[in-house]
Amino acid sequence: MNLPSDRGNCPLCATPHATSVVVQGPRWRLQRAEEAGFPAFYRLVWQAHVAEMSDLSAPERQECMELVNLVEALMRSHLRPDKVNLASLGNMVPHLHWHVIGRFAWDSHFPSPVWCPAQRTTDAARLADLQARLPAFEQALTQALAIG
Amino acid sequence: MNLPSDRGNCPLCATPHATSVVVQGPRWRLQRAEEAGFPAFYRLVWQAHVAEMSDLSAPERQECMELVNLVEALMRSHLRPDKVNLASLGNMVPHLHWHVIGRFAWDSHFPSPVWCPAQRTTDAARLADLQARLPAFEQALTQALAIG
Repeated sequence: MNLPSDRGNCPLCATPHATSVVVQGPRWRLQRAEEAGFPAFYRLVWQAHVAEMSDLSAPERQECMELVNLVEALMRSHLRPDKVNLASLGNMVPHLHWHVIGRFAWDSHFPSPVWCPAQRTTDAARLADLQARLPAFEQALTQALAIG
Repeated sequence: MNLPSDRGNCPLCATPHATSVVVQGPRWRLQRAEEAGFPAFYRLVWQAHVAEMSDLSAPERQECMELVNLVEALMRSHLRPDKVNLASLGNMVPHLHWHVIGRFAWDSHFPSPVWCPAQRTTDAARLADLQARLPAFEQALTQALAIG
């Protein structure tokens, strides 16, 4: 295997201040995934280079999942997805990060996971409507997750 | 959309006592996924018919994720996967369930998610070796998760 399992080769360690970061704390950062066709796709990246959830302490796991939950809850109220997908995979980049993905019955892949082949062409009008709601959503995220 | 979003049409509500259940408590059950080629694939099903993690209370979310973490930790010690994949998707069956999947560099799909097209033929010898370790793993799960 030739995986970037050490910090020196890890793309998430290399870009802690990416322009896609919406809000961050000492132990995590929330980034837009910037995947074409999926504007409601965010990643909560744990800052420390660990591979698995079970590498965290119990308080760290709780902090991590309550942040994921806050992103999900605000996403539901602001973007009204048909389903939220949560996933920590890391097969390509084994540095702990949670995908929080708002899915819509009209999106290009539904009901397949976003990593699989597309089912249809993206609905451009609905995509534009969704994108227009992102600034208010991200403002709410920033307020809710900001370190006081 | 024609999703089984109500309890009456939900396949997870219809099969609470499936033979694939390894261990269960009042609020959850752990099942083997029984997906061909992926013996290290389990599902933690929340017994109540809710769609999203954010439908749970904070103590319920914590209970749910600590159970997922316990499955992951025991899977790592017993089965030594190259990576663990955690996911709550539910696009097809919107009843809260967590996939806990031990992934191996030699498995048929790695590094793709298990829901995507295969990358190669499964290595039958390694698969048999993995399957041989499941009874001890499931015994450990039963002991660790059993309600005292």
